[in-house]
Amino acid sequence: MTIQLYCFGESGHSYKAALALELSGLDWEPVYIDFFNGETRTPQYRENVNEMGEAPVLVDGDVKLTQSAILQDYISEKSGKFDGKDKAEAREILRWQIWDNHKLSSFAGICRFMMNFLPENKRSDEVIAFLQGRLAGSYDILNKHLEGRDWIVGDSVSNADLTCCGYLFYEEPFGFDRAQWPNIDRWLSNIQALPGWKHPYDLMPGSPADRGL
Amino acid sequence: MTIQLYCFGESGHSYKAALALELSGLDWEPVYIDFFNGETRTPQYRENVNEMGEAPVLVDGDVKLTQSAILQDYISEKSGKFDGKDKAEAREILRWQIWDNHKLSSFAGICRFMMNFLPENKRSDEVIAFLQGRLAGSYDILNKHLEGRDWIVGDSVSNADLTCCGYLFYEEPFGFDRAQWPNIDRWLSNIQALPGWKHPYDLMPGSPADRGL
Repeated sequence: MTIQLYCFGESGHSYKAALALELSGLDWEPVYIDFFNGETRTPQYRENVNEMGEAPVLVDGDVKLTQSAILQDYISEKSGKFDGKDKAEAREILRWQIWDNHKLSSFAGICRFMMNFLPENKRSDEVIAFLQGRLAGSYDILNKHLEGRDWIVGDSVSNADLTCCGYLFYEEPFGFDRAQWPNIDRWLSNIQALPGWKHPYDLMPGSPADRGL
Repeated sequence: MTIQLYCFGESGHSYKAALALELSGLDWEPVYIDFFNGETRTPQYRENVNEMGEAPVLVDGDVKLTQSAILQDYISEKSGKFDGKDKAEAREILRWQIWDNHKLSSFAGICRFMMNFLPENKRSDEVIAFLQGRLAGSYDILNKHLEGRDWIVGDSVSNADLTCCGYLFYEEPFGFDRAQWPNIDRWLSNIQALPGWKHPYDLMPGSPADRGL
């Protein structure tokens, strides 16, 4: 059975699951969520697809899951990949996934949305500065951790990497400059060199170009 | 061996682990982190205690863990409590823990810090309004989910509850009013009625009163 991933190209949280699916070799297909026309905010979406009103959502037969880290856990269970070689590694991977959801992808997603997709009269320079300040601290932690390492945990790609990179391949400006963080830059190149790697806009339907931006 | 939890009273993230330890019946003791004098920002702390620069940290013999959800996982493994009755419940519990780290405790912690503990000349009304706007959406999702339920997942207290309540017992204003969210209010009362429940300031060292606030 083909796994369906409800997603859209601009969603770095969706990208985490899409990339895990693509690299895992599992059979999957994207289902487009019309986020920019408000699909995730409708009562129908909240009731039938995801009460948290978020993307992505994974559907595999009777199984329906949300929250990208939960999807990644499911993909690992089915494929045997990306979840570490033992319990200690698995816990360390989950630690970085939670950190990312708390301190990195969360702020990066909002900041990028605000700077690129929100009408200019709804943007707040103070909020953008606040988010970029929090993000600078997070880039610094990740960059330090990657000193002398090819991957965040262990000696191969894991869900920790596939989570933390969620928003870092997008070109739209949100205050992140790869050149400023050499270890992050090298690590992102490692991910890009994986067989089957694709940019979010090549992996999922929907992009700013599709919306005439 | 007594489990040590590096924590401080004002930290709702620490509270999640402290409450889990206390309710689990495991032998534990708090170790005070002097957060307000910058302990978590020192190079020593980042190098020796937690590279992410955060509280809480759990030490149990040779084991040292960070990120509250990881601590809760460890506490469940040792005590056999709070992690659901099967894999499906465990996944649903983790889903709410990740959502909380992404959308609830994260914003609540920052908002409360900014409104109560940051010098007034460093506060930004626009950032506070932004955070409260995000939080209102999160309270609404949690309140709807708790309609007709005593606990977030299954029919007893789990790590989902012990996570999402992290900041919701504090009295300092951060825009959360229990009376406005009747299902959240009832659910918080369920947690308070658990044998051994304690308020964060009674469970961990450090409080605004201790700092003369």
